Amino acid sequence: MFSRVLIANRGEIALRIIRACKELGIETVAVYSVADKDSLHVKQADEAICIGGAPARQSYLNISNIIAAAQNSGAEAIHPGYGFLAENSHFASLCSSYNIKFIGPPPEVIELMGDKVQARELVKSVGVPVVPGSDGAVQSYKEALAVAREIGYPVMIKASAGGGGKGMRLAHNESSLKNALEMARMEAGAAFGNDEIYLEKYIEEPRHIEFQILGDQLGNLIHLGERDCSLQRRNQKLLEEAPSSLLDEALRQQMGKVAVDAARAAGYSSAGTVEFLVDKNKKFYFIEMNTRIQVEHPVTEMVTGIDIIKEQFRIAAGEELSYQQEDIEIRGWALECRINAEDPACNFQPSPGQVGQYIIPGGPGIRVDSSVYSGYHIPPFYDSMVAKLIAWGRNRDEAIQRMKRALGEFEVENINTTIPFHLEVLDNAFFRKGEVYTNFIQRRMSDKA
Amino acid sequence: MFSRVLIANRGEIALRIIRACKELGIETVAVYSVADKDSLHVKQADEAICIGGAPARQSYLNISNIIAAAQNSGAEAIHPGYGFLAENSHFASLCSSYNIKFIGPPPEVIELMGDKVQARELVKSVGVPVVPGSDGAVQSYKEALAVAREIGYPVMIKASAGGGGKGMRLAHNESSLKNALEMARMEAGAAFGNDEIYLEKYIEEPRHIEFQILGDQLGNLIHLGERDCSLQRRNQKLLEEAPSSLLDEALRQQMGKVAVDAARAAGYSSAGTVEFLVDKNKKFYFIEMNTRIQVEHPVTEMVTGIDIIKEQFRIAAGEELSYQQEDIEIRGWALECRINAEDPACNFQPSPGQVGQYIIPGGPGIRVDSSVYSGYHIPPFYDSMVAKLIAWGRNRDEAIQRMKRALGEFEVENINTTIPFHLEVLDNAFFRKGEVYTNFIQRRMSDKA
Repeated sequence: MFSRVLIANRGEIALRIIRACKELGIETVAVYSVADKDSLHVKQADEAICIGGAPARQSYLNISNIIAAAQNSGAEAIHPGYGFLAENSHFASLCSSYNIKFIGPPPEVIELMGDKVQARELVKSVGVPVVPGSDGAVQSYKEALAVAREIGYPVMIKASAGGGGKGMRLAHNESSLKNALEMARMEAGAAFGNDEIYLEKYIEEPRHIEFQILGDQLGNLIHLGERDCSLQRRNQKLLEEAPSSLLDEALRQQMGKVAVDAARAAGYSSAGTVEFLVDKNKKFYFIEMNTRIQVEHPVTEMVTGIDIIKEQFRIAAGEELSYQQEDIEIRGWALECRINAEDPACNFQPSPGQVGQYIIPGGPGIRVDSSVYSGYHIPPFYDSMVAKLIAWGRNRDEAIQRMKRALGEFEVENINTTIPFHLEVLDNAFFRKGEVYTNFIQRRMSDKA
Repeated sequence: MFSRVLIANRGEIALRIIRACKELGIETVAVYSVADKDSLHVKQADEAICIGGAPARQSYLNISNIIAAAQNSGAEAIHPGYGFLAENSHFASLCSSYNIKFIGPPPEVIELMGDKVQARELVKSVGVPVVPGSDGAVQSYKEALAVAREIGYPVMIKASAGGGGKGMRLAHNESSLKNALEMARMEAGAAFGNDEIYLEKYIEEPRHIEFQILGDQLGNLIHLGERDCSLQRRNQKLLEEAPSSLLDEALRQQMGKVAVDAARAAGYSSAGTVEFLVDKNKKFYFIEMNTRIQVEHPVTEMVTGIDIIKEQFRIAAGEELSYQQEDIEIRGWALECRINAEDPACNFQPSPGQVGQYIIPGGPGIRVDSSVYSGYHIPPFYDSMVAKLIAWGRNRDEAIQRMKRALGEFEVENINTTIPFHLEVLDNAFFRKGEVYTNFIQRRMSDKA
């Protein structure tokens, strides 16, 4: 096992990684920006090194300062957390060239899975279902018509160079296809200087369901079941749960196997996540693989009892996986609410600033991952996360009741948070029935969309 | 289910009960002494009623004020927590006469099990092993000699009216019996005006192992496995765990069955605890039954996933137990450290006062039950508990590592706590091997005895 590790991140995830290190007997080196000098991750680490100014580019994205900090502090490995450099294959290979172990999959796997088109082709080649669509760009209306007939309506027309919804048009039937195609091409050309478009089947009211993967460097790969992350606002996950109320045991096993197949095709090791969309008929489609620890990993830890970050360290140190697939048992239900410093009554506007009294909930089934404390000043430079609040129950209903009471006792004085939003979700009749989909907020809570 | 409940207690256990009520949709009425007006249990309840002055006799032991508070607030039931009135059968029957449901066993059961001699005779009559000894008082040296020969040395001579160690003498063999007997009788007469003495086999280096019982009002009774509470200082439990490293599955089943038999003999319902001493040869002896929720109940909750206090409410409302014995599954290992405002470097002298910054640990496997917050003033009038820190792990070793890291990150500014003591225990080689017994501190940490 490593004797000293640098954590190239901040806030709750840096603290989470420090906790794993302490339990493994690994010394920790924190890095921080000048804006984060009072953060708990700095306080809890054995050593802390300031690596630059508040903007992430000067500090948490400053590769040379981070590598230098690792070298100067004698760290043998770097854990990147999520965000920042976590999926930067250049950084991962640079670590390797400096003889520092990057806690994550090999750089080539990060690069491969980071290219969404390549990743799609790779997993498709091993039989993993992907969202049906054209093979690359379509050249003509005739070709588009043929593809649409094959995959079935509704179809989404997307700009090859697209992003942010630009150049996207939905066609519900043949009569609207031609016009949608022309509009999309025109808009794409205007927006990106490239009017190439392609077609994809439009999945209506999909659920976002992802599988947690663990793989060692010896080729052993297992999954830890699914997380349902369908509750999103503008593609940002807000509330996650494990397991998913949509899946039965047969579908769980089938999707789990497919997820492991996808990871195996990529030569995956470390913790990772295979993401799927699932339609109303429970047909599922691979969308992408995330090659890092995810924000929502605690819900999986709560139902499996496995410490995923400790496993990452064991894997990186060359150990064999200590579990086989049949050892993984899902017990009860877990929910995670992301408590952000945002005002849900005012379009989720960020609400940084100094917290007054800060009293976190406790008692049975409650876990809090947070680097905030009474009097802490939440800096405006990074994401607005105050805490991840996780509730476990013997079943979904108990987890919901427990989350409600925990949200009710959570006190974050002086700043606005998403607590009232979560309380509203938990009381929503559709949510209570387990009816969640990625457009839930538009359909069921339109004032919050 | 009840719609409104009064909690006749304070601090962490009152807050714990409020949490259970909120999850069950029950409104809560807190009571408090003038010294506790800023306590979290007051803040978290739906209604709070001041019932008197700081000394417990004026408030938390003031039966008429508590009954009046229940009547005035429309509470249908009272949960007594632990300590104070929790095992007061008079209070329990008074509640009943005022048509208020007492959350606990029937008053006659409290009374029966409260009389330790009666309880011993009762359980003995259904075949539960008890510590061998004389049947009541011994009249002469000759009689004592016969009893001692039968039960075997060493024997403990105890005063019938005894307490606090007065009138107790240990005899290791026949040659020391006579003198010990005379000394004990003399001391008992001087201390209690009653020189009656009795004999009990002395259990050397016993483990204190207790079984959590749940029984409904329909006669269903199960156990939730054991807790090992051997780590004590002057008969005060300091660190508890579940399961016990001493028990194998066969012994667990055997002792569990005996515990259920004892509870059944008493006509028990609600949550309760059957306490045993276990000797080096794994022979076990009933010592007493506690007819209330116990401080250390969370370790059982962590390994079984069952919320014991919610079960108490369901049972009191007349519901049938929702589990059968075969549904109870022990998963992993849990430890509880009692974080008290005491100075372990100075003979555990109480250390009340105002807490400065208060940062509790979080992350995987950690539960904190506490009614303290930053700036809270710990009053000097009650027990010195600051928090119960509970750590769960997949096995005992992981639970220990996790507890160590959680203790390390726990910040309680301005006052002394038992945190350093617990860190020392967790690093003790004998403790690590699972070698704990009630005289562990004298034998293995003599400077803390």
